[in-house]
Amino acid sequence: MRQLLPGHGASRGSALGRARVRLPHALEVVEERIAAEAVDAELAKLHDAIGTVRGEMRDLRERLHGALAHEVGEFLDLHSLLLDDPELLHGLDELIRTGRYSADYALRLQRDRLAGVFAGMDDAYFRSRVEDIDQVIGRIHAALHRRDAAPKGAAGEILVTDSVAPAELAQLQQQGVVAIVTSAGSALSHSAILARSLHLPLIVGAVQALQRINDGDVLMVDGGTGELIVEPDAADLRAHSARVRELKRERKQLYRLRREPARTLDGVDIKLYANAESREDVAEAHALGAAGIGLYRTEFLFLQRNELPDEEEQFRAYRDVVLGMTGRVVTIRTLDLGADKADRTGLVLSGEPNPALGLRGVRLSLSRADLFETQLRAIVRASGYGPVRILVPMVSGREEMVSVRRLLKRVIRDVRSAGHEIAEQIPLGAMIEVPAAAIALPGFIGAIDFISVGTNDLVQYLLAADRNNDALADLYSPLHPAVLRLLHTVIRTAHMRGKPVAVCGEMAGDALFTPLLLALGLAEFSLHPATLLEVRKAVREADLADLRKRSSALLRARDREAIERWMAMTTASP
Amino acid sequence: MRQLLPGHGASRGSALGRARVRLPHALEVVEERIAAEAVDAELAKLHDAIGTVRGEMRDLRERLHGALAHEVGEFLDLHSLLLDDPELLHGLDELIRTGRYSADYALRLQRDRLAGVFAGMDDAYFRSRVEDIDQVIGRIHAALHRRDAAPKGAAGEILVTDSVAPAELAQLQQQGVVAIVTSAGSALSHSAILARSLHLPLIVGAVQALQRINDGDVLMVDGGTGELIVEPDAADLRAHSARVRELKRERKQLYRLRREPARTLDGVDIKLYANAESREDVAEAHALGAAGIGLYRTEFLFLQRNELPDEEEQFRAYRDVVLGMTGRVVTIRTLDLGADKADRTGLVLSGEPNPALGLRGVRLSLSRADLFETQLRAIVRASGYGPVRILVPMVSGREEMVSVRRLLKRVIRDVRSAGHEIAEQIPLGAMIEVPAAAIALPGFIGAIDFISVGTNDLVQYLLAADRNNDALADLYSPLHPAVLRLLHTVIRTAHMRGKPVAVCGEMAGDALFTPLLLALGLAEFSLHPATLLEVRKAVREADLADLRKRSSALLRARDREAIERWMAMTTASP
Repeated sequence: MRQLLPGHGASRGSALGRARVRLPHALEVVEERIAAEAVDAELAKLHDAIGTVRGEMRDLRERLHGALAHEVGEFLDLHSLLLDDPELLHGLDELIRTGRYSADYALRLQRDRLAGVFAGMDDAYFRSRVEDIDQVIGRIHAALHRRDAAPKGAAGEILVTDSVAPAELAQLQQQGVVAIVTSAGSALSHSAILARSLHLPLIVGAVQALQRINDGDVLMVDGGTGELIVEPDAADLRAHSARVRELKRERKQLYRLRREPARTLDGVDIKLYANAESREDVAEAHALGAAGIGLYRTEFLFLQRNELPDEEEQFRAYRDVVLGMTGRVVTIRTLDLGADKADRTGLVLSGEPNPALGLRGVRLSLSRADLFETQLRAIVRASGYGPVRILVPMVSGREEMVSVRRLLKRVIRDVRSAGHEIAEQIPLGAMIEVPAAAIALPGFIGAIDFISVGTNDLVQYLLAADRNNDALADLYSPLHPAVLRLLHTVIRTAHMRGKPVAVCGEMAGDALFTPLLLALGLAEFSLHPATLLEVRKAVREADLADLRKRSSALLRARDREAIERWMAMTTASP
Repeated sequence: MRQLLPGHGASRGSALGRARVRLPHALEVVEERIAAEAVDAELAKLHDAIGTVRGEMRDLRERLHGALAHEVGEFLDLHSLLLDDPELLHGLDELIRTGRYSADYALRLQRDRLAGVFAGMDDAYFRSRVEDIDQVIGRIHAALHRRDAAPKGAAGEILVTDSVAPAELAQLQQQGVVAIVTSAGSALSHSAILARSLHLPLIVGAVQALQRINDGDVLMVDGGTGELIVEPDAADLRAHSARVRELKRERKQLYRLRREPARTLDGVDIKLYANAESREDVAEAHALGAAGIGLYRTEFLFLQRNELPDEEEQFRAYRDVVLGMTGRVVTIRTLDLGADKADRTGLVLSGEPNPALGLRGVRLSLSRADLFETQLRAIVRASGYGPVRILVPMVSGREEMVSVRRLLKRVIRDVRSAGHEIAEQIPLGAMIEVPAAAIALPGFIGAIDFISVGTNDLVQYLLAADRNNDALADLYSPLHPAVLRLLHTVIRTAHMRGKPVAVCGEMAGDALFTPLLLALGLAEFSLHPATLLEVRKAVREADLADLRKRSSALLRARDREAIERWMAMTTASP
C-alpha cells in the first residue's frame, strides 16, 4: 500500500529502488553447524567473501579523490591491515573446518573471541581494537550475504537506517546504493555535506522510516524536496520519470555554466579555484573553467609507496599540473602528512596519541629540512612553466612563515644559479587552519602573500571535535558562531592588507554555504571540481549587496539554530 | 678538576650530587650467555626487577596528584598494562631458560623481536607499540642495573641529558634524582613548568654538559642562577651550604605568607583558589589560606575501579571537601573523562583516534544523562554543608550550558522535594578550554554564572599541539600571541558582565607567569596548593597599575620572542 512518509531533503536527486533496512543493532546470528562434506564449500564461500571485501576496499581506495581520500582513506588502511591478520583468518578456517560451523556463525564466534580478549583488558587503547574488528567482520558478513542474496548488477538499493557515518558514504555508493534515508540527522551535518559532494540523494529526519519500511519495499526518494514514498503507484512513477528528466535537463543547463563567469547578480566577480590531486581533477578543473588550482595536494606522491619521491619525480608531477592549467595559476600545497596517514616511508612520526594534534604539515616539513628543500626545489622549477604559488599547511604563527620564507629564498637562488628558468615571483601563502594562526593573523600577515582558510581542520580544532568521530557528528559543524566570527575576521584582515584570501574546506564546495560565505566577505573559493558548477550557479544567483547588508545579523547569531534560520532565509533547497 | 659550565636556571633550588649521564641514544647491550646452573638466579633477578618496576609504577601512580596525575597518569596506565603482557614475560623467561641468555641480553632480544613484528607492519598504529615497548623494557633494564650498581638509599643523583620529557619528571624525582641538567630546553617549556611545580632544580641550555660531564662526576647545581660546577672545590661547597641555608630561610619566610593576604603592592586583592582532588590537597589548601577550592576534580572517583560510584558515595566525597573548607567556596567540576583515561567501567568511548578531540567532558556527561544526574544530585546535596559551585568541563557553546542548566534545575527541585536541606544558590560555571567557547563567549555568557579558563587544554587546541607529545614541546606554549589575546578577551568579557573569571591551568600555578596574568586583567587564580605561597608572594610583589599600563605592549607582541622579552622585564628569576 502506498505511503508518504515525512522527511527532509538533504542531498538532491531522485531515486527509485528497493529498501535495504539497517537496524541500529545488528541481528544475532544463530548457531549453525554444517555437514563434513560441506566444509570445503563453506570455506570457499568465506574466502570468496574475504576476497570480495579486499577488492572492494582496494577499489574504493583508488576511487577516492579530493576531500574523501582524506576522510575515508585512513579507515580503509587500518581495516585492510586487519583483514590480512593471520590470527583472524586462521581462526575462522579452524572454526569451519574443526568446529563445523557455518561461515556466518564462525564470523560471530571469532568476533566474540577477539572482542573478549581485547575487551577484558583495562586499557582503552586495546579495547579500541574491538570496534575495528567489528567493522571488518561486518564487511565480510555483508559480502557473504550479498553473494547469497543478490547477483551482481541487481537494481540499486536505497539504504534505510538511523544514521550514516561520513566514512560510509563513498562505500555505500560504490556498493550500488542509489539513495539513503535516515531517521535522524540534519541537512547541515558532515554526512549531508559529503552526500551532496558525491551527488548521492539523501533524506534525513525521516522519523517513521525504520518502523514503516521493510526490507525489499520499493521506495521513491526525492533528496531535494524530502519526498519519501513507500510502494509508489503509477502516478508516482510518472512523476519520478518526469523529475529524472528534469534533473537531467538541469544538469545540462548547469554544464552550460562552464563558460560563464562566476559573477553575482549585482555584477561582482568571484574567483572559483579548484582543489585537485589527480590528473583527472586538473583536466576537469580546466574544462569547467576554474580560475586556477587553489589547492594542489601533494600527499599522494608520498603515500602508499616505500621510498620518498625525488626532486625529478616531484618536478615532473608539478610541471604537468602547471602545463595542464595553460597559464592559470596553480597553488601547490607543501606536504601535509601526519601520523593519521598510513605511510610506509617512515617519514611520519608514528604512535602519536592524538595525531590530529601532532607533528604534521609544516611542523614535519621543518623538522625534515632536507625533504622540504627537495619539495621546494621541485615546485620552484615547475614555476618556469606557468604561474605557481606555494601554500604551507598547519602554520601556527609568524616563526614558521619566517623559516619557510628563508628556506624558499635560498632554494630560489640555488635553482636560478643552476641555470633553471623560473618565475619572477612565487607567492608564498599560509593555510589558516590552526586557530592560533587565525587569531594572531594581524601580527604576521606581513610575512604572507596570500591565505587559504582550511575550514575542515579549523572547525575541528576550534570545537575540539575530531571530524571523523561519529560520536561527535552533531557537534562538528562550521555553523558555530565562533567559526563564522573568526572566518569574518580573517577575511577582513586579509582584505585590509590587500592579500588574497580563499576558503578551501568542504563548506566552499557546497552551494548551501555559498550565500553565507559571500555574506562574510569571501571573494575566492577553492573546491573540488565535482561541485564547481553548482557553486558557480549559487554565486550567479546571489545578490551580494543584499547579503553583505545581512551579514551583521549573521555575526550576531548566538547559536547554531540562529545561524540555520539565517541560512533558511537565503539558501535554496539542497 | 673544577669546571664552571654555562647554563640557564629554570627551576630553583641548590643540589649537590653525582652525575648520571644519559646519552641521547641508549648504549648497545652485548650478547652474553650464562651457565645452566645460573638460570634460576638470572630468572629471579629479572623477576625482581620486573617486580620493582611494577611497584615503582604503582607508587608513582598513587603519589601523583594535581596536574601531574593527568599529565603522567595515562602513560603509567598503558605501561603497567604492557608490563603484565604474558607474551612479553613468557618470551623473556624462555630466552633465559632455553637460550641461556643473560637477563640484559634477553631484554634486548625480546625488545628487538617485538619491535620487528610491529615495525614490519605498514600501519602507524601498530608501529607505535614499539615506542611503548621500548619504554617498558627500558624501565626493567634500569631496575636490573639499579639493583646491580647501587644499593637503595644511595646519595641522590643529578641527571645530565639532552632533554627531559614532562612525563619523566615525577618519576625521576621518585627515583631519587635531586636535580636535572639539560643541554637543550627553555625555562618556559612545559617540562620547566612541571619541574618548578615539583620543586625539582633544573638547569637548561647547558650546551657543553654532555661533552664535559662524565658519569659519577660530582656536580653542584643552582637552578635559580643557572650555576653548574663540575667537581666543586672547598669554596664551592661552602657556598652551596650557605645557599641551602638561605633557601631554607626563604622557605620559612614563604610559609609565613600563609596568613597574609594576596594583595598587590598597590593594594588590590587577588583571589587565589586551590585545585584539589585529594583529602591532602584540601587540607593543604585550607592551611595555606586558599580563598576556596577553584577546581575540585572528580575523575578519581571514577577511575581505577570496576563500578561507577553511586550517589551516596559521591555525596560523601563532595560533602567532606565542603566541610574541610569550613565555609570557603568549593567549586566541583563535573566528570571530565575522555578516551585518554584508562577507565574500567566502560563509561568512556574507547578507540577514538584522537581522544583529545573526542567524546569527553560535558559531551560524555550529556550523552549519559543518568550518570550525569547522579553526579549533579550528589553535588547539590553537598551544598547543604557549605557554599558550592558547579563547573562544567569542555563546554563549546550556548546549547550545552542551556542543557546542563535545565537538568540542574530539575535535580535541585527533586532534591528539595526529597526533603534535603540545600543551598539557596548553586552557581553554574563553564570551563573555557574549547577555543570556540572562548571566541563565542559574548553570545552565551548570560547562561553562565562564573568562568574558569582551562589554559592547558585551551593552548593545546588553539595551537593544535598535543601537550603530551614531546615532538611538539617547543610549539606547545601559552606564550603565543593568540593565547594572550584570547585570554585577555575572555577576562574582559567576563568582567564587563560582572562574572567572576579564574585561570586554572598550569600557568596560574607558576609564579613566573603571575605578572603576565595580572597584566591581562586576571584577578582570580586557581592552582595546586604546592605553589600557592610562591604565587601569593609574586602577587604581593606586583605593581598592578604598572603592569596594566604595560599590558598593551604585551598584547602587541607578535611572536613568542617578543612575549619573552616582555616577561624578562617584569619577572624575577625562577
